Amino acid sequence: MRDLYFEEEDMQTQILEKQDIEAFWEALAQCLSPNDLICGADVSETDIKDWSTEIPGKPIGLALPRSTQEVSEVLSRCNRHSIPVVPQGGRTGLAGGAVASDGALLLSLARMSDIEEIDTASATATVLAGTPLQTIQEAAEAEGMMFGLDLGPRGSCQIGGNISTNAGGNRVIRYGMTRDLVLGLEVVLADGRILSMLNRMPKNNAALDMKPLFIGSEGTLGVITRAVLKLHPGIAGANTALVALPDFDSALALLGHARRVLSDRVSAFEVMWADYFDAVLDVTSLRAPLESKAPLYVLIDMQGPDPEKENDLFHDMLAEAMEQGWVLDAALAQSQKDALDLWALRDGVTELLMTTRPTINFDVSVPIAKIGECVAHMRAALEADFPEMNRFFFGHIGDSNIHLVTGPLPADPNVEHRIESLVYEIVRNFSGSVSAEHGIGLHKKPWLKYSRSDEELTLLRELKQTLDPKGILNPGKVL
Amino acid sequence: MRDLYFEEEDMQTQILEKQDIEAFWEALAQCLSPNDLICGADVSETDIKDWSTEIPGKPIGLALPRSTQEVSEVLSRCNRHSIPVVPQGGRTGLAGGAVASDGALLLSLARMSDIEEIDTASATATVLAGTPLQTIQEAAEAEGMMFGLDLGPRGSCQIGGNISTNAGGNRVIRYGMTRDLVLGLEVVLADGRILSMLNRMPKNNAALDMKPLFIGSEGTLGVITRAVLKLHPGIAGANTALVALPDFDSALALLGHARRVLSDRVSAFEVMWADYFDAVLDVTSLRAPLESKAPLYVLIDMQGPDPEKENDLFHDMLAEAMEQGWVLDAALAQSQKDALDLWALRDGVTELLMTTRPTINFDVSVPIAKIGECVAHMRAALEADFPEMNRFFFGHIGDSNIHLVTGPLPADPNVEHRIESLVYEIVRNFSGSVSAEHGIGLHKKPWLKYSRSDEELTLLRELKQTLDPKGILNPGKVL
Repeated sequence: MRDLYFEEEDMQTQILEKQDIEAFWEALAQCLSPNDLICGADVSETDIKDWSTEIPGKPIGLALPRSTQEVSEVLSRCNRHSIPVVPQGGRTGLAGGAVASDGALLLSLARMSDIEEIDTASATATVLAGTPLQTIQEAAEAEGMMFGLDLGPRGSCQIGGNISTNAGGNRVIRYGMTRDLVLGLEVVLADGRILSMLNRMPKNNAALDMKPLFIGSEGTLGVITRAVLKLHPGIAGANTALVALPDFDSALALLGHARRVLSDRVSAFEVMWADYFDAVLDVTSLRAPLESKAPLYVLIDMQGPDPEKENDLFHDMLAEAMEQGWVLDAALAQSQKDALDLWALRDGVTELLMTTRPTINFDVSVPIAKIGECVAHMRAALEADFPEMNRFFFGHIGDSNIHLVTGPLPADPNVEHRIESLVYEIVRNFSGSVSAEHGIGLHKKPWLKYSRSDEELTLLRELKQTLDPKGILNPGKVL
Repeated sequence: MRDLYFEEEDMQTQILEKQDIEAFWEALAQCLSPNDLICGADVSETDIKDWSTEIPGKPIGLALPRSTQEVSEVLSRCNRHSIPVVPQGGRTGLAGGAVASDGALLLSLARMSDIEEIDTASATATVLAGTPLQTIQEAAEAEGMMFGLDLGPRGSCQIGGNISTNAGGNRVIRYGMTRDLVLGLEVVLADGRILSMLNRMPKNNAALDMKPLFIGSEGTLGVITRAVLKLHPGIAGANTALVALPDFDSALALLGHARRVLSDRVSAFEVMWADYFDAVLDVTSLRAPLESKAPLYVLIDMQGPDPEKENDLFHDMLAEAMEQGWVLDAALAQSQKDALDLWALRDGVTELLMTTRPTINFDVSVPIAKIGECVAHMRAALEADFPEMNRFFFGHIGDSNIHLVTGPLPADPNVEHRIESLVYEIVRNFSGSVSAEHGIGLHKKPWLKYSRSDEELTLLRELKQTLDPKGILNPGKVL
């Protein structure tokens, strides 16, 4: 496995001598109040971890700045003393991007939580990095607007973490990734320089937009402190249906048809292969919404300001799809409760994970047209090599995203790597991505090379060297 | 004016000795066929200019590579011999980004024109950089899809130029800027390294997305050779109306209302202030579509697969706006011809430019909520200082974009700078952008500082130094 890892010498930070740390700690105490600084031994076990399975190191402490100025002062001191820094949001990431490293200072944005402005006329929200996603969603709703980003841990994750990991979630097909929802950013660079790019205009071509350097860089190029977010018009609900399909080509045809007829307003298109669908019905007490069995199911949603008014359009779209033979059977939600029941099938993955554990959960993407073939390859290869394990496939296919859960994992510690190797090689053969939405962090570092060329990784290192020459920001993550 | 310009020492390229140029020319002849190389004296007058008024320098020649490999070989030779390079697309830019520099090699992508693939299931098009925009639009349409980018010179501009300038155009409110329509890029760096980032997936979080470094960098960081574009579902037409409004706040209210009721499908929202509107009626033979006069008019479009089916929705949206008092009077297009007649008012800017010349044409943006106030400031200041000149305001306000045409410009050569200074200072006071969509090129270099902070410009220089250490790519442009 060694050859999959990159040389890390240039990124490595040295573990400091005791007196160095004391000098650093004194410097830090000059810029933060004692209440906002926690020393190594006192940092709680939960603060050193995220939602991944990565094993955390021992940090030298935890800083909780209350302003951009304080973040800047902390970083400039870390840089001067060559202290590595692990920026942290709500620590809900699944790739280990926010777990503590040995000898690092944890830099939590949690005390920078505020919605500074909702500007309904400009359709923007200006927020601090530590603001929970759900707080932003609710503030937008209260003004008749909507923030397009949504994901499971909405109550715990923070917008700064969402931006630094370019979070995906439930509505990417309609509203895009987090990157598409950020108009402006304020970022503190490794040396403490504050970069204010708080643009509020959809159109701004006054030289290169440098915000994308920090969106999805997982805290390795700068620390996000503030953002201007793009809002969308408020919605009242959704038209929802669960449909059964004869094959994957029909799912592609239905997707194209639905997007055309509904003017690109499809806000969810969740494909569930029969292995997943049947297993969820097995492990939950949910009622099957359709009578007959099919190889493939799709949950389709169109959010809007007046779902009742759109019922006919949505119904006619599905009727035409049935006529064409793309859809075998359909259950249309007649109420909010119906819709929730249909969504429960997709959310049944939680129970599936519990009853199948330990599992490996894949989050990969391949070009949309190739998803059916790619899943067939993965299923056949896993069945051949690991027949005793279950495999469940589902995904947001309009976003190119496939999720695969496989388990239970046997005790043999080599099996996990063998399965990852098998799956990621297939992804590579389909010119896909080893990480559709979870990022790289620590967990996917060995596989990054499968999706990015040597030339890209070289340029990535050059950018890292330019922006963080001492390599203090989230060392050992991503690269 | 000197203080507005940046020091350029580090970007400057030296004019070479004759024997150096001969050695370079020999090296170049090894990688391009003689038909694809034009020596200095033979380069035509049209090839050294773009659509701006910037005065071109004398290039040493023009290279017309036919493949990415050839672009790479040309650039590596330029880099070795320290020859500056001016990348060129269709040369329709308005900021001077593609005009020849003294001693530079012009690098035209015109012979790399091909649509390699339209993948309807994945909703992507893979194209070479020299492909004209209109060719891509037509190829997408032939497959029942749509490419969201549209601008006047669609037949002449090339997609590589559109991407490198992050072109805006007619439908930004619905489909975004070019940046939002690019999934994958292939770029050649200054030293000839080929960077293949031909991603085809909407979701890909396998480390930082580096494509944005090249989108909108106006050829200063790399040369774009190939792209994977995002397509949208095909459309059959649009619902179109021209409405009269009592004031700018009503325009904001109508915009929010229309976006909410039409589920964010508004594809044009062109505001015309009375000064513009009345002047267009004056200089064209167009019939006024509304009986009464108003301070403000809006042309509103909603493109879709079946405009007739949406007539009621569109009509009801406007009726509600009239009831609320946001709209005084409305003319709804009943046919394609009606719609074209309404659009002719907006396109009447061409006649207006002819009859008012010489003009200064501004392309700026400010936060949407502030546009009304900003325009009032500009109008008052221009009326006070330049009462003898006309001023016409219009804009895509959903995109934050204001256009201002003022003229005729008197003979005094200082007036242009005084007017620019007046307008850009107001833009700066509103935290706006001195370039909404046209870019910086040569023309707006003096004003870039009004929209970007010193820290941003420093980082921009650091990135330039990282990606193009010898400063050969489009020297003197942007920075």
